[in-house]
Amino acid sequence: MFSKLSIAATALAALSAPVAGQTYRRLGSCPSLGCVLPPDQADFLPGQLFDLRVEVHAPVNGSEAAHDGKPDEKFKVTIAKDGEKPRDFADAFGLDEPKLEKWDFQWYEDLFAEDADKPSVVNVAAKAYRKLALYEPGTYTVTLSYYGNETTTAEWTVRDVSKERKAKNVILFIGDGMTTNMITAARLIAHKAINGKYQSLMKMDEFPVIGHQMTHSLDSYITDSANSASALYSGHKSSVNAMGVYVDSSADHFDDPKVETIVEVFKRVHKGIWGAVSTALLADATPAALSGHSRSRYDYGALIDQALNGVTNFTWTKQTGPDVYFGAGAEQFFPNGNSYQGKDIYDQFADKDFQVVMNRTSLLELGEDDKALGVFCQGNLPVWLDRNVYTDNLKGLENDPAGGDGDALDLPGLTDMTTKAVEILDSRKGEEGFFLMVEAASVDKQMHALDYDRALGDLLELDDAIRATIKLLEERGSLEETQILVTADHGHGFDVYGSADTEYLEAQDDERAKRRAIGTYANSGESQYTQPRNVKYGTGANFPTDWEPRYAIAAGVGAHPDMRENYKVHKSPRSPTVRIGDEYYANPEDGEGGFVTNGTLATDEAVGVHSLTDVPVYAWGPCQDLFQGTFNNVDIFYKISECLGLGVDEESGDGGDDGECKTSRRKRQHN
Amino acid sequence: MFSKLSIAATALAALSAPVAGQTYRRLGSCPSLGCVLPPDQADFLPGQLFDLRVEVHAPVNGSEAAHDGKPDEKFKVTIAKDGEKPRDFADAFGLDEPKLEKWDFQWYEDLFAEDADKPSVVNVAAKAYRKLALYEPGTYTVTLSYYGNETTTAEWTVRDVSKERKAKNVILFIGDGMTTNMITAARLIAHKAINGKYQSLMKMDEFPVIGHQMTHSLDSYITDSANSASALYSGHKSSVNAMGVYVDSSADHFDDPKVETIVEVFKRVHKGIWGAVSTALLADATPAALSGHSRSRYDYGALIDQALNGVTNFTWTKQTGPDVYFGAGAEQFFPNGNSYQGKDIYDQFADKDFQVVMNRTSLLELGEDDKALGVFCQGNLPVWLDRNVYTDNLKGLENDPAGGDGDALDLPGLTDMTTKAVEILDSRKGEEGFFLMVEAASVDKQMHALDYDRALGDLLELDDAIRATIKLLEERGSLEETQILVTADHGHGFDVYGSADTEYLEAQDDERAKRRAIGTYANSGESQYTQPRNVKYGTGANFPTDWEPRYAIAAGVGAHPDMRENYKVHKSPRSPTVRIGDEYYANPEDGEGGFVTNGTLATDEAVGVHSLTDVPVYAWGPCQDLFQGTFNNVDIFYKISECLGLGVDEESGDGGDDGECKTSRRKRQHN
Repeated sequence: MFSKLSIAATALAALSAPVAGQTYRRLGSCPSLGCVLPPDQADFLPGQLFDLRVEVHAPVNGSEAAHDGKPDEKFKVTIAKDGEKPRDFADAFGLDEPKLEKWDFQWYEDLFAEDADKPSVVNVAAKAYRKLALYEPGTYTVTLSYYGNETTTAEWTVRDVSKERKAKNVILFIGDGMTTNMITAARLIAHKAINGKYQSLMKMDEFPVIGHQMTHSLDSYITDSANSASALYSGHKSSVNAMGVYVDSSADHFDDPKVETIVEVFKRVHKGIWGAVSTALLADATPAALSGHSRSRYDYGALIDQALNGVTNFTWTKQTGPDVYFGAGAEQFFPNGNSYQGKDIYDQFADKDFQVVMNRTSLLELGEDDKALGVFCQGNLPVWLDRNVYTDNLKGLENDPAGGDGDALDLPGLTDMTTKAVEILDSRKGEEGFFLMVEAASVDKQMHALDYDRALGDLLELDDAIRATIKLLEERGSLEETQILVTADHGHGFDVYGSADTEYLEAQDDERAKRRAIGTYANSGESQYTQPRNVKYGTGANFPTDWEPRYAIAAGVGAHPDMRENYKVHKSPRSPTVRIGDEYYANPEDGEGGFVTNGTLATDEAVGVHSLTDVPVYAWGPCQDLFQGTFNNVDIFYKISECLGLGVDEESGDGGDDGECKTSRRKRQHN
Repeated sequence: MFSKLSIAATALAALSAPVAGQTYRRLGSCPSLGCVLPPDQADFLPGQLFDLRVEVHAPVNGSEAAHDGKPDEKFKVTIAKDGEKPRDFADAFGLDEPKLEKWDFQWYEDLFAEDADKPSVVNVAAKAYRKLALYEPGTYTVTLSYYGNETTTAEWTVRDVSKERKAKNVILFIGDGMTTNMITAARLIAHKAINGKYQSLMKMDEFPVIGHQMTHSLDSYITDSANSASALYSGHKSSVNAMGVYVDSSADHFDDPKVETIVEVFKRVHKGIWGAVSTALLADATPAALSGHSRSRYDYGALIDQALNGVTNFTWTKQTGPDVYFGAGAEQFFPNGNSYQGKDIYDQFADKDFQVVMNRTSLLELGEDDKALGVFCQGNLPVWLDRNVYTDNLKGLENDPAGGDGDALDLPGLTDMTTKAVEILDSRKGEEGFFLMVEAASVDKQMHALDYDRALGDLLELDDAIRATIKLLEERGSLEETQILVTADHGHGFDVYGSADTEYLEAQDDERAKRRAIGTYANSGESQYTQPRNVKYGTGANFPTDWEPRYAIAAGVGAHPDMRENYKVHKSPRSPTVRIGDEYYANPEDGEGGFVTNGTLATDEAVGVHSLTDVPVYAWGPCQDLFQGTFNNVDIFYKISECLGLGVDEESGDGGDDGECKTSRRKRQHN
């Protein structure tokens, strides 16, 4: 069994004193001049495919300048299991020695160096060992020796993960950027309380098990959504903007050392099918990281190609695409400059037997038997609040999913997409089971825009999708074989601190006087979002009955650009700032009648940012007890693997039967 | 068994349309003109003592003016169990009808009314029924009839709580104001990570079970520490600043309807002993609410008297004081204007066979056999950072616990106090067991001061106390019989959003240019608080090795007064604002070299405020599984009661054997 938390008994001596820089670093995963990727402390599932990248750095100038800028090209790499004698790395895997690669790169040591435009240049010698796998649980020590007497050591752990399968299916709901604080606020505005006792609750509140996961990156304590999704899906932390790879220092986005993801493993080991649903671009970080391998989340076209066709520039897994794929970002599908190689990706999906739908009506008419692609608009899906309350905002977006300049008005919600995805996957799963990821993307996107009402609306829609999914699975008799998880990939530093009397605030002329409208403690009062008023949105239970109460929630974040706040719902989506020169200032047309606060972020930052906080993990299903307590985000991959019985200890599926690369067959030789 | 969440199936019709006001309300628990306290939705432990207050309001003026300002004095009160025929309330409990009370009070309908100085006046007719108890689980409907055809109905639930005892002892750690966000930040600065994997963890991180609790008040969604502590200890939510009572509209702080607390119940049912440890005044809300009954947490002297002597103005429980009582706030103990009736409270404790100590040396020398009072300074205990790193700040405080004007320098920490308290309680517990509450008070107090380093230092000290307690219990063979809980009473909207290059920030002259020092995402980098530098504090493992790194955490809250931020540790405790006239402005001597942000709170607010977020509950012990999932703060009282087997269904202990008040004997008559 794997341990609950990934803690090594000792810090390895190979980590030399860190470079002073922190805002910028030469290579985050590599404080010394020799780099091993996957780095020290990496964990693996038995049989999980990965690449190894080693680099030797020779800084030409700056505080680290050494070795006359000439990297050691005769570096050696060894691997040793559990204290056994080290073996040459290529030998141990039965590989030919890879060819030496060379490049250089630049970085700034700190902001002073950047202001002075004094970059540090580094020359690099490197090798890559591709499509490897370790099957036996235990500890492996990889040593890179260079410059005569220098070494970088990486201790890797292959976790002992069960082969016994406890769940047939896994559904992973991700509220992007969603924190406990936001869930509390969403409950407040959507569920009525009497004398402090809620009369109904969020579906998440009914989940029997809660865990907390740590979201930080490998090399920075604030993550982005690509890196954190990748950690959840692969069990490997990486760097901001990367997915399915460790970031090396080469310029090529697609040559970085890869790690196998949950859908690739699930397909290889069990031939299980998978799907993704998102309110963002399907090429966006959270859905794309299921199948994508790139150091840049912005390689949108290529990431959609990888989703459908797998990795093609190196031999890799035989992941051959999802069974359901519902979301937005049509600009990566119709033929244009944003689609992969300018091709018609809709056609490519259709050629692989996908039903292709582009509006809600067609989505709902889909049968359960065929694979399906649904792409409903260009850009991100308009948010719940605009689809359900302020519907005029859907007009004029020119977001036709076919690539025309009309508006996409026949739009599904997250619940529509999710329940259809579950129907198809549950119908097609056979004995193999399914893995589905569902993302409420605009919790994050609207938190960035400081548009808390829109973020909370989409959080409530996520809760609605969870509620509908559990009901549907129960009706289909599939609930008990399905592990349901709800979590996030990172937070935003949001919280509610009181109420705002929006009438009083508006009536004051003085900016300081307006602040008196904020009621704290006893003066926060009770939620007025659940009180009947003369408005009817027809949005049913579990959503606010009034989005425009006089006493609104007063909420905010610690990190924001200059902004004006009036605490009212933004009837049009919020743009808190405007750009003047290279800097952002409070948008004079936003938060009318409110008061201005100057920001706490760099002035070239237009929106709010991610935060550090651990995020909740809600678990319901046959493996729910695995998700108790506090753990690292990468542990979720191993817990899901444990639940699905993915801990194979020998070659299986597509992993080793590839003529070009036999490294994963070398278990006997290595052990 | 009690249900996991306190949800009534239906909202009761008695709640008429709410008054427009929210910043101010006539009486938060009473939207109609007839008030029943405990109100609708109240829960009770079987046998839990309580008072009933009923009021009829006649608003003289304002938007609610009615009945010529003459309250109905002939109101009737009935009670019915589970749909049985209603009975006269006094009859049902075998009481004489209480005498009618009359008073009036004023309030403002909103901020406009306050600005215009137009208060609303309300005349009141009221009665109080005291020292009641309901033994049979089920639903009770209390109806107040008034003004002919108006009624206010309260549905009460007596929960079915086990009589079977699963734990002998309970230790409840409270990090005041502590959120998951803060725990994440504390971990970051105190525990070293390599490539994103922590090499050591918080003790809290090892707890097997996590729950989330909702902290809101009965009548406002932001709570204070008195009301929320009282909810945890009594199972009844009340209003801001109240403890152990529901707030009525009379002027008297001590005549409000009381509810029995966990230590009173534990003593009555099991004759169990109790103790409290706090880094705040022992009279402060969190420790005082264990035994206190007042609508105002600021009745400090009286609350210490209630802790030692119980409630004396009405017949109530025979709670006769703690066995250990360690904390600060000596000004409530030596004879002076702040001690109860000017008396020497140290003497009163000594007269009740307490060993009295006033410094760390004497604390550590205490044996295990005797009851002990430890009061170590006036005011709050100086925080961990000042006791351990910036020790010059202890000088000149003139906080001698004996009441002199010398400095208290021989100060214990939370771990010293906690382990000594556990030794004494564990030694004295006999067959009855003990209940101990331990509060890290300055997590909250320093968050108010926006002094995040000091708050996180005290959070780490709490974690150290938890670690030491578990080790001590294990050594004493008492761990397995002890339920350990760690939670908070409310949050602050704190989060970390990046790093700040404090050198770069200081070097910029322009306020906007300074903001460029904030590194987000990848530029947040790794924690430098765990890197060795040329500093040695001697504070050991699990605390930062460097509190003054060049790259500091950049953190903040959404709600704050005007302030200046430079992100450096405050070597002296922080005062973020200064008062000019009636308003607060950024303190020109605080955050030197930083940039100013204007506030988001009313300008008469000097510090930060509490927030809405659910807070975590960590559980370790024989009843840990009770604390899974999401629940209301009041549920913690019922879960602890379940764990201790406090669900008695007949009179026991001190509850009914009092000659003056026989109401709790009337079970047979009522049923």
